Amino acid sequence: MAVPVDALMLDPTAQGTLQSRIQQMVAQGILSGRFRRGEKLPSSRKLAAHLGVSRITVTLAYNELLANDYLTSRGRSGYFVSENAPDPPAFADREAAPDRIDWDRAIGQRFTGGASPAKPLDWQSYTYSFIYGQTDPTLFDHTNWRQCAMQALGVRNFAAMTADYYDRDDPELVQFVLRHTLPRRGIMAQPEQVLITLGAQNALWLAAQVLLTPGRRAAIEDPSYFALRDILRQTRADVVPVPVDAGGLPPDLIPDDTQVVFVTPSHHCPTSATMPLDRRRALLERAGALDALIVEDDYEFEMAFLHPPAPALKSLDDEGRVIHVGSFSKSLFPGLRLGYLVGSARFIDEARALRASVLRHPPGLIQRTAAQFLSLGHYDALIRRMAREYDARRRVMEAAIAEHGLTIAGTAAHGGSSFWMRAPDGVDAEVLARDLARRDVLIEPGATFFAEAPRPIEFYRIAYSSIPADRIPEGIARIAQAIAARQ
Amino acid sequence: MAVPVDALMLDPTAQGTLQSRIQQMVAQGILSGRFRRGEKLPSSRKLAAHLGVSRITVTLAYNELLANDYLTSRGRSGYFVSENAPDPPAFADREAAPDRIDWDRAIGQRFTGGASPAKPLDWQSYTYSFIYGQTDPTLFDHTNWRQCAMQALGVRNFAAMTADYYDRDDPELVQFVLRHTLPRRGIMAQPEQVLITLGAQNALWLAAQVLLTPGRRAAIEDPSYFALRDILRQTRADVVPVPVDAGGLPPDLIPDDTQVVFVTPSHHCPTSATMPLDRRRALLERAGALDALIVEDDYEFEMAFLHPPAPALKSLDDEGRVIHVGSFSKSLFPGLRLGYLVGSARFIDEARALRASVLRHPPGLIQRTAAQFLSLGHYDALIRRMAREYDARRRVMEAAIAEHGLTIAGTAAHGGSSFWMRAPDGVDAEVLARDLARRDVLIEPGATFFAEAPRPIEFYRIAYSSIPADRIPEGIARIAQAIAARQ
Repeated sequence: MAVPVDALMLDPTAQGTLQSRIQQMVAQGILSGRFRRGEKLPSSRKLAAHLGVSRITVTLAYNELLANDYLTSRGRSGYFVSENAPDPPAFADREAAPDRIDWDRAIGQRFTGGASPAKPLDWQSYTYSFIYGQTDPTLFDHTNWRQCAMQALGVRNFAAMTADYYDRDDPELVQFVLRHTLPRRGIMAQPEQVLITLGAQNALWLAAQVLLTPGRRAAIEDPSYFALRDILRQTRADVVPVPVDAGGLPPDLIPDDTQVVFVTPSHHCPTSATMPLDRRRALLERAGALDALIVEDDYEFEMAFLHPPAPALKSLDDEGRVIHVGSFSKSLFPGLRLGYLVGSARFIDEARALRASVLRHPPGLIQRTAAQFLSLGHYDALIRRMAREYDARRRVMEAAIAEHGLTIAGTAAHGGSSFWMRAPDGVDAEVLARDLARRDVLIEPGATFFAEAPRPIEFYRIAYSSIPADRIPEGIARIAQAIAARQ
Repeated sequence: MAVPVDALMLDPTAQGTLQSRIQQMVAQGILSGRFRRGEKLPSSRKLAAHLGVSRITVTLAYNELLANDYLTSRGRSGYFVSENAPDPPAFADREAAPDRIDWDRAIGQRFTGGASPAKPLDWQSYTYSFIYGQTDPTLFDHTNWRQCAMQALGVRNFAAMTADYYDRDDPELVQFVLRHTLPRRGIMAQPEQVLITLGAQNALWLAAQVLLTPGRRAAIEDPSYFALRDILRQTRADVVPVPVDAGGLPPDLIPDDTQVVFVTPSHHCPTSATMPLDRRRALLERAGALDALIVEDDYEFEMAFLHPPAPALKSLDDEGRVIHVGSFSKSLFPGLRLGYLVGSARFIDEARALRASVLRHPPGLIQRTAAQFLSLGHYDALIRRMAREYDARRRVMEAAIAEHGLTIAGTAAHGGSSFWMRAPDGVDAEVLARDLARRDVLIEPGATFFAEAPRPIEFYRIAYSSIPADRIPEGIARIAQAIAARQ
């Protein structure tokens, strides 16, 4: 790779003659690792024109660098970074630039230090990864996704897809969601009632920002998705955790004056509890009595291989009270970042304006590729394949869990991709997870899902979305051994 | 395309016999346009199993639908939506669902009605589109972009790219920005000082959220990018507009107690003014005296074909005072949504945590494709081609503008992609733009860039990024005619 001429810029604050400043500039580029061994430098003519200096000055600087073995010349083909040039330091080793800002004062709002735990980025290097929310690349329909991306990248789609959409979405994706995805959940909606988001996370964030203000009251499930608690903390609303039972959120425990209820009826996060139909009706009734809105996070409804999923809460709502959040990330792949919000047009208008201000729109290429993949039926086929495989893995999990006498604390009526587990009293799942990581096993400690201290320490979650079936028995055996060792 | 079985769901609130409810369900799917003519329905056996009803009930319902010509049967191959089935209404014509929510009360924060004007989505259908911020698909290196996307979609990259990154970025893209993009602006940074964002818009939004709170004071340029004013409005900070001159923002006009200055030194938005080097130094000095931070939006620095771009403000900053915003969207394509923030690690930590909460991370596929495209040198070649073309178009613009006696009010020292224009006194550019749209010409009225009423009405912006050179003379001639007609 050649060093482009405009990668070379004289430091206006540097001292010394022009020639020495040019030498320094090149040498620093090499020493810092920006210009690498064997890379070609701009010709002296080109660099002189770029810097606005005489060519002889550049030639003299280059000759000096040749003499010092920073550069070599290959006759007429020009100057190259020498193979004997000094080693650049590893990037991370260089010292950070000095900083004279009092960041404690300068930072107006703090977002670090929230409830979301640090997640293992290297989960793929573990043999027994029971980590939730990552998918198995071997299950994915890579060939057809690639084909659809090629289609979306084709000349016909390209212009439409690469333009600035301002605050709009890809109409093809919106139409698919309206005609196919939502009807499966029993939801009929109009285009102005749908907003494409950067995953379910983004949808929940937008809904919280539009609906909550300091002083308003929101009810959440306890335990609940930790990232949701971070989102709600930003609104400075009064957030009330409501303990869930085997049927999810009990409607009569929602406190008075609640204005927004956040709920996961299909699979409660993290216990996987499925809310029965009569409780869904009772929840809508309670919300009606409070004149509250409900934000329904309908994640993972596709993974229903034991029983068909219950209709979404939104499908039972004839008052516009439910805001529905869905996602393609769980079923396609999490790095996709594609989800949607469904709600009354007035609400969607505000969420759309906020999204436009925060990020404009999800990238067109991603939207169009997903629209192609969905409309050609590949998505349905993928879901069926995943459901079959998850079903098989789940049975292996159940057998292994039973064999080793581990305790299931929660499981989804329809299927899902994880079990909510409970270790014996006094065994701290956080410590257990650390023990297990050293034994090549990843599990997710559960304390972080609980809203308030003292948090139960014994719960943990194990998922089977990214672990092949044949590794499950050994992985579960290791969990059992680690628990036994801690008792 | 077949109708998947789980697109069929009985309405639990519906009345009538099971058979009639099944008929209704299918008929409604057809009437609403969800199931289209020729699409195959699930077999009676499959649908019966899915709904948990007897097969004979489904068969009876299907027979009734056959009789009514909603469906046809093709012998053993099953049931299809009839070619004679009733026409579905156009989607937009259906009435919105009833809504019993008092949205004026339910919406906690309002984001609609900001400064950002509605933009013409159909700009590509105009022959003479001088609209800013859209690129010309014919200039783009479509073939190599596609190739890089294929590479990124390859099996080797795929697993890395599709996983949930949590709050991280694609390390390949970060390395490229550190080693190539930033050094061109004279900036040396470490990985922990860079955050990839969903375009410059997202970068500006994150910076504003982290740095501003109600009561803090921010200084902005006047005129300025309207979407920035929307972003700052959300923070409820005290925003002070500072009138710019031909050298951009005058540092001594920045009011006391200012904590954050938002500035566009390379090309002032919208006048294109380039801030001279001595003023950049004076601005840093003024910020130092105020102990203020500076958010530098360095958009369009690549389009420097007249002179090399001045070093970024950030490159002159040895105190960590400058937060640098860059974007690949202007030079690749706006629908890409890829930009970056550069600043002290403490600041980047907060911006990263906020980004994770709002959207997690920009889609991996997009990050990896861009990293490939950049590192293979296609980006540099593209920039050179675009710069050459823009240079040529700019000359055609200048000649046509001179020929018709139009007035240039602002222009970039390095090049850029637009002219800031001024119509004769009393000519309202808003009205002018409407006149011109009827004559197949798009221009951008300038009043919306000004912070406060009374806004000057005569300014407008004309860009040459998406109009071919041969259409420019006629387009400018039409602008001149429309101005003459309004005088």
